[in-house]
Amino acid sequence: MPQHGPDEIGRLALKDGAAMIRLPGYAEIKAAHARIRPWIRKTPVIAIETDVTGVTDASVALKLEGLQRTGSFKARGAFNAMLTHPVPAAGVVAASGGNHGAAVAYAAMQLGHPATIFVPETAPRVKIERLTRYGATVHQVGQTYAQAFEAAQIQQTASGARMLHAYDDPDIIAGQGTAALEFMAESGGLDTVIIAVGGGGLIGGVIAALMEAGVKVVAVESTGTPTLARALEAGAPVTVAVSGVAADALGASRIGVYGLALAQAHLHGMILVEDDEIRATQRLLWDSLRVVAEPGGAAAFAALVTGRYRPAPGERVGVLVCGSNADLSKL
Amino acid sequence: MPQHGPDEIGRLALKDGAAMIRLPGYAEIKAAHARIRPWIRKTPVIAIETDVTGVTDASVALKLEGLQRTGSFKARGAFNAMLTHPVPAAGVVAASGGNHGAAVAYAAMQLGHPATIFVPETAPRVKIERLTRYGATVHQVGQTYAQAFEAAQIQQTASGARMLHAYDDPDIIAGQGTAALEFMAESGGLDTVIIAVGGGGLIGGVIAALMEAGVKVVAVESTGTPTLARALEAGAPVTVAVSGVAADALGASRIGVYGLALAQAHLHGMILVEDDEIRATQRLLWDSLRVVAEPGGAAAFAALVTGRYRPAPGERVGVLVCGSNADLSKL
Repeated sequence: MPQHGPDEIGRLALKDGAAMIRLPGYAEIKAAHARIRPWIRKTPVIAIETDVTGVTDASVALKLEGLQRTGSFKARGAFNAMLTHPVPAAGVVAASGGNHGAAVAYAAMQLGHPATIFVPETAPRVKIERLTRYGATVHQVGQTYAQAFEAAQIQQTASGARMLHAYDDPDIIAGQGTAALEFMAESGGLDTVIIAVGGGGLIGGVIAALMEAGVKVVAVESTGTPTLARALEAGAPVTVAVSGVAADALGASRIGVYGLALAQAHLHGMILVEDDEIRATQRLLWDSLRVVAEPGGAAAFAALVTGRYRPAPGERVGVLVCGSNADLSKL
Repeated sequence: MPQHGPDEIGRLALKDGAAMIRLPGYAEIKAAHARIRPWIRKTPVIAIETDVTGVTDASVALKLEGLQRTGSFKARGAFNAMLTHPVPAAGVVAASGGNHGAAVAYAAMQLGHPATIFVPETAPRVKIERLTRYGATVHQVGQTYAQAFEAAQIQQTASGARMLHAYDDPDIIAGQGTAALEFMAESGGLDTVIIAVGGGGLIGGVIAALMEAGVKVVAVESTGTPTLARALEAGAPVTVAVSGVAADALGASRIGVYGLALAQAHLHGMILVEDDEIRATQRLLWDSLRVVAEPGGAAAFAALVTGRYRPAPGERVGVLVCGSNADLSKL
């Protein structure tokens, strides 16, 4: 059972002149898992051999979250957000042609809510078709996602629909964290979990799930998308001009407040990987494991196979491969 | 423990004027699994939802054997063959640029044996590179696999190396059957297993593993590669001019004797699927599940999603997706 009612989590409160945010913890992640379990896929965990990882004295398990419904962990957060609070008749709104947009459209379709998704005019046809296939109404507005996001907010205000933020929302974060609970159970226990960071929804949820158990959490970003790394240095979110191969999936330009707060509370390492290391890891995942990973999905494993993260002898390391929505022609 | 010594299984004996072959059963598959377990990957099983399969009143689980080492179930048989009997100093020989060749080269590399693989001069460079990466000596001889096979036999005789047949070998069959034992254990029990058929090594092993437990086994071939279907009609192996999208992986031109005998003993259905159904199922597997399947790997699932196999209410159906060595550019 949650330690607090779902309405309390994420609420701002003032105390001693400072704003306090109640962060989700293990109990909220556990409750989220019970809520979304009938709607999501329990993605598989596989043990990976020494000759693939180059890691000789520690064990490595991958959780293949790219096999999740809609191809990424984002389905977990989308379902949890819609199942935690009543959805208005006007439905849900999101601004994303990527994994979050697909997850919101898909979850809304499954739960019988209307979904309206805003994308810029430049969004590729294949992404729009995917949203339409999931039954969403798609609006193409503006030249950038920032402009599409603005249009989405205007529509949300006018229609009374519920806007779902891609990561800076405690219900979304609690949903994403459920992947960590499954990972612990299926692997038989882990000392360390390595996670790629975009806007901080996944890392926030994973930390919330594992902090109380004392499991180490290591964050990975590409050198072109260092939103968490910069924010940890600065002690507050910093807007970063993202670029490079992982910009599509890890390319939030600013870390979310909840994700940053959770990372400040419990993070054991912050690793940056180069774009060419991510590309090489995508190829390794395909060639050695027949796993298709998007650049964001490969980044966490890249930290391990490049030796940038070195496990201690006997350490049980889990790596979440968070998405599979790759352009197959580039593999 | 095996019911018979490993040397007895597959041996021909004459009885009452007929040739008798001792076929592998559950005990041999169990022994094979213990033998190969340290060398293979326990591939994941995932439950598949009604909206993907179109099957509303039965449960469907997929075993993703495409995530096996070398990308197909063939690694199981190759390891079992090399671990059951001593390998001569001259090593092993095979004639295959496909999944069997890759599995033999890989298993030999892991176990420290030399491997010589024969392929025709027409074999694509990418397949030869894969064999070389696994440390095999590759000979390109002749225009067809039949000619390469002939050359392999000559070399085997001259060198004393052990020739490994792709499917008509009881050790290979026992290895392939181990996938069925894992499938039963990981899924929590199945009433029916649906399996694609090439030369009969996999279906033979699966039947050997499941026959005694009374689990139904359903075989699937493409209309262009009906080697088992024709042999069941004729009561003996028939040479078939194979063609079509699955010819590469399911395209043995003649079913093996062991596989046919096991299918005659215990087969609950023989289903043929069209090439365009296989292609559509490959796309479905990618679009809905982010699973990459080669045409042979998609064929068994095609039997289910096309409605050619209709489960009974409450039936627990398992489908083995047997290989992932697909041309990504065609997805």
